[in-house]
Amino acid sequence: MLKLLSLLVPLASASIIQYQANVSAISSEWNATSNSSSSLSLNRPAIHFTPDKGWINDPNGLWYDAKEEDWHLYFQYNPESPHWDLPLYWGHAVSKDLTVWKDHGVSFGTKNESDGAFSGSMVIDYNNTSGFFNASVDPRQRVVAVWTLAEPDKQTQLLSYSHDGGYHFTEYEGNPVLDIDALNFRDPKVFWYDGAEDSEGHWIMAVAIPQKFSVAFYSSPDLKEWTLESDFTDKGFVGYQYECPGLVKVPYVRNTTFASTPNSNVTSSSPLSFNSTESWINSTSAAWNSSSVWNSSHTNSTLLNSTMFGNETVLQEALEESGFAWVLFLSINPGAPQGGSVNEYFIGDFNGTHFHPFDDQTRFVDLGKDFYAMQTFFNTPNQKDVFGIAWASNWQYGNHVPTTPWRSSMSLVRNFTVTEFNPNPNTTELVLSGVPVIDYSELRKNGTTYSIEDKQLSVSDSEVIELEDPTGVFEFSLEWSVNATNVKNYVFSDLSLYLQGDKHADEYLRLGFEANAAAFFIDRGHSNVPFVEENPFFTQRLSVNNPPSDYTSNTYDVYGVVDRNIIELYFNNGTVTSTNTFFFTTGNYISSIILETGVDDVYEVSNLRVNQFYAD
Amino acid sequence: MLKLLSLLVPLASASIIQYQANVSAISSEWNATSNSSSSLSLNRPAIHFTPDKGWINDPNGLWYDAKEEDWHLYFQYNPESPHWDLPLYWGHAVSKDLTVWKDHGVSFGTKNESDGAFSGSMVIDYNNTSGFFNASVDPRQRVVAVWTLAEPDKQTQLLSYSHDGGYHFTEYEGNPVLDIDALNFRDPKVFWYDGAEDSEGHWIMAVAIPQKFSVAFYSSPDLKEWTLESDFTDKGFVGYQYECPGLVKVPYVRNTTFASTPNSNVTSSSPLSFNSTESWINSTSAAWNSSSVWNSSHTNSTLLNSTMFGNETVLQEALEESGFAWVLFLSINPGAPQGGSVNEYFIGDFNGTHFHPFDDQTRFVDLGKDFYAMQTFFNTPNQKDVFGIAWASNWQYGNHVPTTPWRSSMSLVRNFTVTEFNPNPNTTELVLSGVPVIDYSELRKNGTTYSIEDKQLSVSDSEVIELEDPTGVFEFSLEWSVNATNVKNYVFSDLSLYLQGDKHADEYLRLGFEANAAAFFIDRGHSNVPFVEENPFFTQRLSVNNPPSDYTSNTYDVYGVVDRNIIELYFNNGTVTSTNTFFFTTGNYISSIILETGVDDVYEVSNLRVNQFYAD
Repeated sequence: MLKLLSLLVPLASASIIQYQANVSAISSEWNATSNSSSSLSLNRPAIHFTPDKGWINDPNGLWYDAKEEDWHLYFQYNPESPHWDLPLYWGHAVSKDLTVWKDHGVSFGTKNESDGAFSGSMVIDYNNTSGFFNASVDPRQRVVAVWTLAEPDKQTQLLSYSHDGGYHFTEYEGNPVLDIDALNFRDPKVFWYDGAEDSEGHWIMAVAIPQKFSVAFYSSPDLKEWTLESDFTDKGFVGYQYECPGLVKVPYVRNTTFASTPNSNVTSSSPLSFNSTESWINSTSAAWNSSSVWNSSHTNSTLLNSTMFGNETVLQEALEESGFAWVLFLSINPGAPQGGSVNEYFIGDFNGTHFHPFDDQTRFVDLGKDFYAMQTFFNTPNQKDVFGIAWASNWQYGNHVPTTPWRSSMSLVRNFTVTEFNPNPNTTELVLSGVPVIDYSELRKNGTTYSIEDKQLSVSDSEVIELEDPTGVFEFSLEWSVNATNVKNYVFSDLSLYLQGDKHADEYLRLGFEANAAAFFIDRGHSNVPFVEENPFFTQRLSVNNPPSDYTSNTYDVYGVVDRNIIELYFNNGTVTSTNTFFFTTGNYISSIILETGVDDVYEVSNLRVNQFYAD
Repeated sequence: MLKLLSLLVPLASASIIQYQANVSAISSEWNATSNSSSSLSLNRPAIHFTPDKGWINDPNGLWYDAKEEDWHLYFQYNPESPHWDLPLYWGHAVSKDLTVWKDHGVSFGTKNESDGAFSGSMVIDYNNTSGFFNASVDPRQRVVAVWTLAEPDKQTQLLSYSHDGGYHFTEYEGNPVLDIDALNFRDPKVFWYDGAEDSEGHWIMAVAIPQKFSVAFYSSPDLKEWTLESDFTDKGFVGYQYECPGLVKVPYVRNTTFASTPNSNVTSSSPLSFNSTESWINSTSAAWNSSSVWNSSHTNSTLLNSTMFGNETVLQEALEESGFAWVLFLSINPGAPQGGSVNEYFIGDFNGTHFHPFDDQTRFVDLGKDFYAMQTFFNTPNQKDVFGIAWASNWQYGNHVPTTPWRSSMSLVRNFTVTEFNPNPNTTELVLSGVPVIDYSELRKNGTTYSIEDKQLSVSDSEVIELEDPTGVFEFSLEWSVNATNVKNYVFSDLSLYLQGDKHADEYLRLGFEANAAAFFIDRGHSNVPFVEENPFFTQRLSVNNPPSDYTSNTYDVYGVVDRNIIELYFNNGTVTSTNTFFFTTGNYISSIILETGVDDVYEVSNLRVNQFYAD
């Protein structure tokens, strides 16, 4: 039986400049296509970047302009039609808050229609190592794009530079800067590696030799001359090919709430709460001061010598002292175990030329189906944070998802750290944690909060939260505990959330936890949209391993963001995540959140909170 | 438009003793439960082992009796009800041909109802190293079970031995033989490792310390005293825990049709054909002669010294000379990337104490959802073949699948080799190949063969094969080529097989290949069975990366076996496989095989053959 929850009083809705800006974009887009056969234009995400029109895939060239305090996102872009095709361009978008983006259209392309400006990165050449800049260009805006020119029979690495803060680019006349006469050789991600105190430092490029399952590391003093230093080959899950590598120095945040010794009791980590990411923008807004800041904050050193590998105590001490670990990100497509595209990562050390993972594990960044080609920003305000964006689609079906006149969105921005995690009660290991970076300050102020607290669930007593005036955009957090004594292994023992459409109740997302599978599931198959019903690669049912946040009390938590046609789920402080698109009929926004169980005396929900965001 | 294919004339159906035996078992089971609420008893697999009644999971103690020429399969067994519960027993089944099995019920259990006789293996103690045997027991039948006693607070390794060829067991009075005071410590798999010419040789046990992500290797001269030699820890994809390890010497079969140098043209491997496994039983039926055969065929040596790792040419030469590689099998549950349970493997070398993988890749044995806890036989007729069986279910939903009075089947037996494979046109790597071992000699003789050859597919011209008197049991092979010139990247370009039910056409399996995704999909969601419609872990849509068998001609192949409620797919000679259960309404056996495409001028089917097996 369902009963209606008494709702908290909605807060007053006021106009928010940032949010409204995007809503205006949605409206104009909708007007532009209202005569088309589109049935899903209204379902455009509000706080995930989408292009006004056309096709996008990999995020490219991410950087933060400390002078203008702007975040720059470039992306693989076909402005002509909502599917991948040549010629492929770099598109460009800018944001003040990493939440709302302004689409600036095409940034640059290639000379020939049969070529593509494939993926790459941007660096800030603060000290003008390239010679592309003079004093008229603020050091904080000396951006150079390093990208792949894909010709029909060859892929090479090129440079383009901007004198106006990333809006217009000039191709370096000495291009290509790296040509190994290879059909597949792409996706350069470049960063500056500071040398030891008596050495100069140099640029490092991680670039994929996709079908050799290899990441090559090149060094350069000036971005123009590159020397092969090492390679990282035949590691992890390889699928068909490697793409989009990225080597990044990621802050290490020791999680003292996780056990460092086997079998000791562990206590809860802080679950993602409504407030946990509130202050990111302040904490990271330290101004860029001078090149000395750059150097001091980028002091690199080798964490460990080879004898230290495999010694957990030594490793933990080294990480605490250094404050970071190196993470190699890698994209695999096709051939992901769950189908199509997937991102994996390796945690280890880098000595300026060679990357050495701490172990031989295969770890995935996100276990949903719509998170690929993740790239991190060159530069963040405090010079330490690592923020990343992924393409929120899958090559198995990205060209067929029912949106128009655009196709694909980016993921939310994630703030990455390396931390401890207990995948089971007897092991502590290093993992990547990624939590969403959203400027909630205005969104929440005008939203409505709904809440259920300390609720013992039973079969006959469900709970419903009804969202008034559904917008399709909300966040939620759920904390629950399991009374394992009452779980019978042969009884399907679920706690389920049904996120039901307003206009068509037969369209819903089902999310939930099942105690015997110890997994959290998502079912996005309950939709009347033909693409969902028919495309054999659009996996309806997905699940992730879901260990407790606290093994002693058997407590679990999930934080989710729903944004029109995408849902991002974060478990255990972002150490496990699952990002998936979903598609309902036009404008059928989620309005009911139904909390149910199929078993008595198993689940207690300490907190279910929902915050709907209003556009105006 | 569909058009009916003119069928080949069915061969006469004659009674087959082996096959009929199983059909009798089905009939008696069905009679026994015809008054129950069962709706799926008739869907019991015919050539996959299922218990007459009760629950099964991991295969255990696999061995071949060379005296009686019997194959022995034991398994985790709850005879009392069709779900996992304590006390858990070892069940027992016997086969003459690895195709039809006779269920012998409970083999042995534990003394206490709160305990479980958990997984383990059997060895033939030919030379009576244990002292359990006297001259009255034929050396070929001196079987010792090494298994895990799971008590509420501890898991230890025990021995039981049989004096009657595996039908009755006596517990060793000195049990446990291995106790490290651990809550999780299980699934011993034991084999004999021959020493160098001047040494004795010893037993090696691979056993899981599940939540430490560790496989421990112990040695013993007599199966009673065990010495820790090494461990294999923190490798591959780890999920929640490791289970069911197995270290096996697998024949290396050089695949000369695959490129050994990058970018060279490669020619087709032999796809699995109707005849490829026909002769296995003859080729492997060399009689067991004496202990000298044992010793000569089990000569172990270290393939490589450490400096040879990473040198492909040296590796290939060493493998060709030795004729084998070592493979470590490992089971992960929960937490597989595709949800729940999965098997992975590592190819490498073993020197008698330490296993060293050739690379740091993560490889999965089967990418379907229903293939877990794979174990290999101790002994095969020619002393070299490696045959394995997996549990054909998934812990996410195994306790809920709609069969009664039994639950779960085993997989088909697979014959494993290590061989070369081209995951893309530019890489050759070692992989495991597993092809089904079925005694087709009688099954095919009485079956009906249907065939389509050299068919250019078009949207308006589908093909249908109608199986007469459908039995629910058939094999098929499909070979197709792709005209890549005509593939548009933004057009969904499928070749689909619809395997449609006879009584309810709205129940069907959809299989197929899509050229842009370069993947083969299976959709098992089109069913009216409530379990299929509702269980959120029963992933309907699955896919596997599907490289061509011949990159030059863009030719692909798949071989499949459908057996009532399970389908096993083998690609590229079993180097990629996907095993999945499916559930239709009672007795709604597949009768129509519809071959379609959604695009013109892309697909040519050189051969689609279907062989239905008749029961009588």
